[in-house]
Amino acid sequence: MKKVVTLGEIMLRLSTQAGERLSQANQLIMHYGGGEANVGVSLSHFGYDVFAVSKIPNNPLGLGVKRHLQSHGVHTDYLVTGGERLGTYYLETGIGERSAKVTYDRKYSSFSKLLVEELDFDEIFTDVVLFHLSGITPALSANLQEVALLALQKAKEHGVMTSFDCNYRASLWSHEEAAKSFVTLLPYVDICFCGELDAIYLLGIEKASETLTREEKLVFYYEKIKEMYPKIQYLSSTFRDVHSASNNDLQGTLYVDGRLYVSKKHAIHPIVDRVGGGDAFAAGILYGVLNQFPPQDSVSFATGASALKHTIHGDCNAFTPEEVFQFLENGSGKITR
Amino acid sequence: MKKVVTLGEIMLRLSTQAGERLSQANQLIMHYGGGEANVGVSLSHFGYDVFAVSKIPNNPLGLGVKRHLQSHGVHTDYLVTGGERLGTYYLETGIGERSAKVTYDRKYSSFSKLLVEELDFDEIFTDVVLFHLSGITPALSANLQEVALLALQKAKEHGVMTSFDCNYRASLWSHEEAAKSFVTLLPYVDICFCGELDAIYLLGIEKASETLTREEKLVFYYEKIKEMYPKIQYLSSTFRDVHSASNNDLQGTLYVDGRLYVSKKHAIHPIVDRVGGGDAFAAGILYGVLNQFPPQDSVSFATGASALKHTIHGDCNAFTPEEVFQFLENGSGKITR
Amino acid sequence: MKKVVTLGEIMLRLSTQAGERLSQANQLIMHYGGGEANVGVSLSHFGYDVFAVSKIPNNPLGLGVKRHLQSHGVHTDYLVTGGERLGTYYLETGIGERSAKVTYDRKYSSFSKLLVEELDFDEIFTDVVLFHLSGITPALSANLQEVALLALQKAKEHGVMTSFDCNYRASLWSHEEAAKSFVTLLPYVDICFCGELDAIYLLGIEKASETLTREEKLVFYYEKIKEMYPKIQYLSSTFRDVHSASNNDLQGTLYVDGRLYVSKKHAIHPIVDRVGGGDAFAAGILYGVLNQFPPQDSVSFATGASALKHTIHGDCNAFTPEEVFQFLENGSGKITR
Amino acid sequence: MKKVVTLGEIMLRLSTQAGERLSQANQLIMHYGGGEANVGVSLSHFGYDVFAVSKIPNNPLGLGVKRHLQSHGVHTDYLVTGGERLGTYYLETGIGERSAKVTYDRKYSSFSKLLVEELDFDEIFTDVVLFHLSGITPALSANLQEVALLALQKAKEHGVMTSFDCNYRASLWSHEEAAKSFVTLLPYVDICFCGELDAIYLLGIEKASETLTREEKLVFYYEKIKEMYPKIQYLSSTFRDVHSASNNDLQGTLYVDGRLYVSKKHAIHPIVDRVGGGDAFAAGILYGVLNQFPPQDSVSFATGASALKHTIHGDCNAFTPEEVFQFLENGSGKITR
Amino acid sequence: MKKVVTLGEIMLRLSTQAGERLSQANQLIMHYGGGEANVGVSLSHFGYDVFAVSKIPNNPLGLGVKRHLQSHGVHTDYLVTGGERLGTYYLETGIGERSAKVTYDRKYSSFSKLLVEELDFDEIFTDVVLFHLSGITPALSANLQEVALLALQKAKEHGVMTSFDCNYRASLWSHEEAAKSFVTLLPYVDICFCGELDAIYLLGIEKASETLTREEKLVFYYEKIKEMYPKIQYLSSTFRDVHSASNNDLQGTLYVDGRLYVSKKHAIHPIVDRVGGGDAFAAGILYGVLNQFPPQDSVSFATGASALKHTIHGDCNAFTPEEVFQFLENGSGKITR
Amino acid sequence: MKKVVTLGEIMLRLSTQAGERLSQANQLIMHYGGGEANVGVSLSHFGYDVFAVSKIPNNPLGLGVKRHLQSHGVHTDYLVTGGERLGTYYLETGIGERSAKVTYDRKYSSFSKLLVEELDFDEIFTDVVLFHLSGITPALSANLQEVALLALQKAKEHGVMTSFDCNYRASLWSHEEAAKSFVTLLPYVDICFCGELDAIYLLGIEKASETLTREEKLVFYYEKIKEMYPKIQYLSSTFRDVHSASNNDLQGTLYVDGRLYVSKKHAIHPIVDRVGGGDAFAAGILYGVLNQFPPQDSVSFATGASALKHTIHGDCNAFTPEEVFQFLENGSGKITR
Repeated sequence: MKKVVTLGEIMLRLSTQAGERLSQANQLIMHYGGGEANVGVSLSHFGYDVFAVSKIPNNPLGLGVKRHLQSHGVHTDYLVTGGERLGTYYLETGIGERSAKVTYDRKYSSFSKLLVEELDFDEIFTDVVLFHLSGITPALSANLQEVALLALQKAKEHGVMTSFDCNYRASLWSHEEAAKSFVTLLPYVDICFCGELDAIYLLGIEKASETLTREEKLVFYYEKIKEMYPKIQYLSSTFRDVHSASNNDLQGTLYVDGRLYVSKKHAIHPIVDRVGGGDAFAAGILYGVLNQFPPQDSVSFATGASALKHTIHGDCNAFTPEEVFQFLENGSGKITR
Repeated sequence: MKKVVTLGEIMLRLSTQAGERLSQANQLIMHYGGGEANVGVSLSHFGYDVFAVSKIPNNPLGLGVKRHLQSHGVHTDYLVTGGERLGTYYLETGIGERSAKVTYDRKYSSFSKLLVEELDFDEIFTDVVLFHLSGITPALSANLQEVALLALQKAKEHGVMTSFDCNYRASLWSHEEAAKSFVTLLPYVDICFCGELDAIYLLGIEKASETLTREEKLVFYYEKIKEMYPKIQYLSSTFRDVHSASNNDLQGTLYVDGRLYVSKKHAIHPIVDRVGGGDAFAAGILYGVLNQFPPQDSVSFATGASALKHTIHGDCNAFTPEEVFQFLENGSGKITR
Repeated sequence: MKKVVTLGEIMLRLSTQAGERLSQANQLIMHYGGGEANVGVSLSHFGYDVFAVSKIPNNPLGLGVKRHLQSHGVHTDYLVTGGERLGTYYLETGIGERSAKVTYDRKYSSFSKLLVEELDFDEIFTDVVLFHLSGITPALSANLQEVALLALQKAKEHGVMTSFDCNYRASLWSHEEAAKSFVTLLPYVDICFCGELDAIYLLGIEKASETLTREEKLVFYYEKIKEMYPKIQYLSSTFRDVHSASNNDLQGTLYVDGRLYVSKKHAIHPIVDRVGGGDAFAAGILYGVLNQFPPQDSVSFATGASALKHTIHGDCNAFTPEEVFQFLENGSGKITR
Repeated sequence: MKKVVTLGEIMLRLSTQAGERLSQANQLIMHYGGGEANVGVSLSHFGYDVFAVSKIPNNPLGLGVKRHLQSHGVHTDYLVTGGERLGTYYLETGIGERSAKVTYDRKYSSFSKLLVEELDFDEIFTDVVLFHLSGITPALSANLQEVALLALQKAKEHGVMTSFDCNYRASLWSHEEAAKSFVTLLPYVDICFCGELDAIYLLGIEKASETLTREEKLVFYYEKIKEMYPKIQYLSSTFRDVHSASNNDLQGTLYVDGRLYVSKKHAIHPIVDRVGGGDAFAAGILYGVLNQFPPQDSVSFATGASALKHTIHGDCNAFTPEEVFQFLENGSGKITR
Repeated sequence: MKKVVTLGEIMLRLSTQAGERLSQANQLIMHYGGGEANVGVSLSHFGYDVFAVSKIPNNPLGLGVKRHLQSHGVHTDYLVTGGERLGTYYLETGIGERSAKVTYDRKYSSFSKLLVEELDFDEIFTDVVLFHLSGITPALSANLQEVALLALQKAKEHGVMTSFDCNYRASLWSHEEAAKSFVTLLPYVDICFCGELDAIYLLGIEKASETLTREEKLVFYYEKIKEMYPKIQYLSSTFRDVHSASNNDLQGTLYVDGRLYVSKKHAIHPIVDRVGGGDAFAAGILYGVLNQFPPQDSVSFATGASALKHTIHGDCNAFTPEEVFQFLENGSGKITR
Repeated sequence: MKKVVTLGEIMLRLSTQAGERLSQANQLIMHYGGGEANVGVSLSHFGYDVFAVSKIPNNPLGLGVKRHLQSHGVHTDYLVTGGERLGTYYLETGIGERSAKVTYDRKYSSFSKLLVEELDFDEIFTDVVLFHLSGITPALSANLQEVALLALQKAKEHGVMTSFDCNYRASLWSHEEAAKSFVTLLPYVDICFCGELDAIYLLGIEKASETLTREEKLVFYYEKIKEMYPKIQYLSSTFRDVHSASNNDLQGTLYVDGRLYVSKKHAIHPIVDRVGGGDAFAAGILYGVLNQFPPQDSVSFATGASALKHTIHGDCNAFTPEEVFQFLENGSGKITR
């Protein structure tokens, strides 16, 4: 029984080559991805039967989404077809001091119009071990807030472990709107990915004292969240030191049973593509939890998986657990031959 | 006094490489274009001061439109900025027996929301020799039908010669809707690009007898149109024999003073890119009319220009009149060195 | 019940760009494919649950095969992993008068070492409607001759319809060797793809009279084959007039119940990639047979599907039945927008 | 009144991909650029009506120059056409420890043959706020020394603010030749870009004491220059610490009213393309001066603009003032979405 | 004893992708080539020890020439190094009705300044079986006329067979200038490649009667040439029917001992790259002559070699004699596997 | 007398673009190379007449090897043709923390089947100054152990200086097998490239004390090796600090006459391609030895050459001695123009 379900939008990403401006470009690189589906792709490479729930238009780009998921072994049986268009965004790739710049063109997407009636959650959640959702879904429309809530409720009805990644996007909704939605969802969540800013601005927790280290602050926030939502068993996030768009340090954390576990710090330099880095981390945590790894091992695995993701193009982390473990052992950059 | 004005949508075209399916593609080629602006680009290369009237979003793709027009010397002073998105379409390039396939994603575009109040036609039409419009504009929204009508009226008020290309798009509106719009516009038109199907389905003319040659049929339709809209001085269209997506024969026609002038037949094989081929033809006719070429010369020039357009990528015909004339003289495909 | 099984080698194809020589190339385009799997990919796009039986090495190229099949929705549950290497070939792409040139590097492949013991045909053939095999498989090794024979026998035991494409490859075995193998296999075959040369050189039928048309000749051979192997219900092949590597005419044939049905002739010009053209045709025939199309419709559909395949890169025909039907109706090369 | 004029050669740059040697390359990337025109392009993106004065051959490469300038909104009315060839150079792109290597092929260029008689400075300088010139122009030919001098004189006659970038190129002339020319030009200059080496080798100032910091040395040189050419109001240059071809630190300076203003240090890593980095800086200073920014703001803006330039391919800095300001505020390399 | 010598300029060719205009291009494809060296490359692939005599600049482009020749096995011992620049030309690739367009930038090249004193013909011609030269060399400068004449004289002194390809280039000199030069060279020539236009405009022969076939006309001209230059043993040329830039028919001719031998007509469609097609033909004739093939075989071989050249990018024909023979036998465009 | 001979396998390398996984790639970059031939290529650019001894299949990939060597001026007279296939490997390019990953497909290669009888060492070693071999050759097959031994013996018979690079590959043989082979070869070696691990695991020397610096350890091992094989005059290796796949520090060492000479440390960042970096170093040492440079100069030159190699794609170091010296002098990454 290794069935996993994700629910969320899958978009077309159109990126420039590094060193090009979007307004001057004459070709674009295509990738498909979305926070929840990216987590699903990782879990598929980790050996799970992942089913992506989403809605795609009945056109070649919708078909492209399907092909993308299938190539990673993700099942597309629960993709609803219809609506007007595929959510799209343009990424002017960042490099060095210059940040990446996103131009969204996702309004009116098929997924944003998905209705509760179009999904049969009783069928979807049969024999499922894990359901993963992110805060982007309720941000997209009122109907999706309904879908997200029902999905979590149904998952718990079927005894499914639930995972939620806050993933706040300021371009989609305000802190207040997000807070109002999250308060309805979090009671049904077992594993929650959220960081300091989420705790303060979305969950309404007061700022921790500035005298604390960042690890101590996180513990402070996580304790408060546990108090508010006692069903949450795991809390997790990453520290990312952004030296430049090409050079980040990344460190993962996992809070469980009142203790914070922290991975080693990965120096990611150069960054090939950081889109999906957080999703690769979340999938790593979920893999550890599903396999009952000791928490320290989970967070090391997850951070390693995320570091690897940063070295390949596209949203998706196509590494097997064996490759991640090998990377953590040797990870020196030495050629193997 | 060589100022020319065009009004219409300029879209982002995202095309596959020949031999690739859109659903399997991993990169796309970017072009910007639109029927009226393409005519403007040709006329700019023919020596006119062309001003494109349109509306673009305030984002890098809108800026891309501006750069595109400027690179061809087209003035962008009358580009209105605002709205939500740039009209976009995906082109799965055709080859051989397989046709090109368009996936539109143009709904909700900035241009489709352009309002009459956003344009100052009195300023725009000052000192203008020609105004060009196509039937795509009124097809996009009710407000654009208003814009189109006012534009033609204002142009005539300022003594500007007006050109209209029917350009019927079945995916945008029905024959009935188009007919209802065109009947309001055509009284203000001096030069009209329309073919047999337009005459029958949009202008409501009965079908010509099947015993006539295609030239005779065209004369039949054009006579009827002249009766209905006596102010139209020039009527023009092309015969295109589509042997395959890579192989067409093209012949241009121009009807003036009761007589039809027909160009030689160009064998276009292979076709590099046929998008914009009709616009290149229209621009050629307009160049001939503006320069008072004998009608036979106009139609030969226009058809040559259109044939050249088919041999380059993108919507736009960046050939000078000298290059077109040279092509008509030597056009054998011989290398010149 | 729409399960289909194919058995055969899937190779890595490394092709040059058109206009490049392999010995001068500095990059190669990767495709994965194999006769039987290509048929399976088409049938997957036609709506079947296709399972590819094969053997791949445990390395990134073996994984590439898996991803390739999955992206087309083909199930990889019956891919055996092991052995030394993936069969590979280099294709110097032909153009105009210059033929494509294949450099094989397929010896010692994992698939060629596949043993009968590695497959559980009773599981594989449960609930299957069709099994497809080609003459390349027994050509590769003695053990594969055993595998091929057992597969056909087991398929018939399970009441599965069987399809066999002769696909003679002179570089792999002699006419005599092939004949010796085919005589053991054909008694278990329901649908057989073979042409004039196969009939003469592999099945040992005397040459038809030169005074006959090519259709009459084919009828002559097919009648003889029916006499020798009365269980064969369908015989099929194509006429290909090779004007150049870029320009072929293609016509399909299907012989059933004593009558030969012939499709219209498709002018394929230019050819983008002819590898897999025969497989696309075979898949089309199988689709027609499985859906009990009238024979004339089957052969038209199959030839149309094959013509479309020639217009895209790669071994695989990613067109839906709807697209093939639409192509047969309009197939003029006209742009649709 | 926002008209700006630049005068200088615009060349074709043909670059290798990073990691390729020119002698082994099989394709080259094309860019057009020239020190003065690059400054003009930046100022066009900063909102000025820039006119580039230059001379181009009457061939497709000359036309390429024109298209390049137009795409950035630079006016080409003062491009003289004629002569034999476009100045060209080949750039073997550097990376890491290996420096970029320039192979010049610019002799006999159309611009180098430009004569005083071909330009009408009275028309050119009408209503102009700024004229920019560099030391490359007089380095190219005796006639261009005449052109440069007359241009500066005429600019001052028309009350135009003048800017001069020393831009010494050892491959074009000796220190002595440059010094002889500069002494005639500098009396007409308001804003001068020059560094320590220029001060010593071209302006003949004695070396500053080695005990001084580099800022103090620069003040020493700038004071001397002010004494020699009291009309110069602004002196400016950059400190560039070259760690490798991919990794530089950049800091800008601006000297005005007896005081040196220094920007923060930008760590530029990796460098995408450093050609035009100095021109982007100069344009930033000029923008600050024209808009009467406080000197500290000018130098920060200019250095930020230059840092951004290093992150895109090509000679030109297509960033708006808003983008530069935003970069200075956030510039952390964080993705914005 | 298989030493062959060629003398001539080797240029850098910078071509656009098909379907692009040079003025709009942003990358160019590099090839090196020159009429005589191209003949040498073919003869190297045919098994000869070819030595290219030329002059290249001491820069990476000169080195590129050397690498190019070496990669084809041509010896570079007689390449003189020096001068200012490598002759360069830009090729806007033609397609369909649109011709290729050459923009020359070859003036002031190192080769054009080559002096008689820089070459030691006594060493160069030791043990040589064939010397090949074309009419481009004397067209480039007065000193090269001297070099060409001395080369032919010295070759004959050393008993070397000499070959001369008229290769008239209108952009380099007038008919009169060419005629004046050729009259001094042809007395030393054994094998002459020239066509009808050369005969009339360069060798001053009256026009043949229009009632003759093109073969008869050629015989007429060749007889006259034999009278004027009795030492010429072989005369040869091609008939090229240019249907379009992508579609030519090619037929070779060879005149020897008073009889004209004509090859079959090759339909070359599509043409990948026709530069060097004539050189491949000349090399084929020379190969036949050196190996004393029957004339009909020589002309068939040469035309086949030239047809093959048209199917690959670059100036050079990298086919072995075996490949050419195989092509002539099967040349149907059938895939071989 | 500048003839140099190398003996070893030359393979086809098929690499992914940086940031791509092999299993997801759709094109591969081709390079040819092999340890010994790479050394030969460097020495050819350093002015030697290098002859590569190897065996290649009679197919386009074998021809590709030949063209590759020739383009670098390496003589191919001693390439034996025959056997089944060219040794091949796939390289998933590493970046940042993620290492490059090699997938070998080299078994059954033509070279691995090379027999002693196929080579005439008496001819090969006539007039030779240096013979270079590596430990990869005896690792490939028993017959190649014979070939390697005879080659070294024959070289010494002809008075040729011999060089041997241990180049241990764990994927090809065990430490014990390598040790057994090396003990037979080293008595014939004059210059030996080996590091600490080679000394311990292949030559059986006890581990040096951990209290020593790495330089002192190396001296310890080298002294022991000198005792065991007193004919070895030079011992050499590099220290490589691998910070990541993109960032290494490199320092070369050379031991001669009882003293260790160490180069400055090169910071190689980013690394373009590290394959062949060791070969470039070895070639640099050999160049210094052949030219009797002071040892410190040899090791500086060699390390500089190796650093340069890391900045270009492909196995081969196409830099002249002048370029290496210039790099050592200026090597700051400053653009030179």
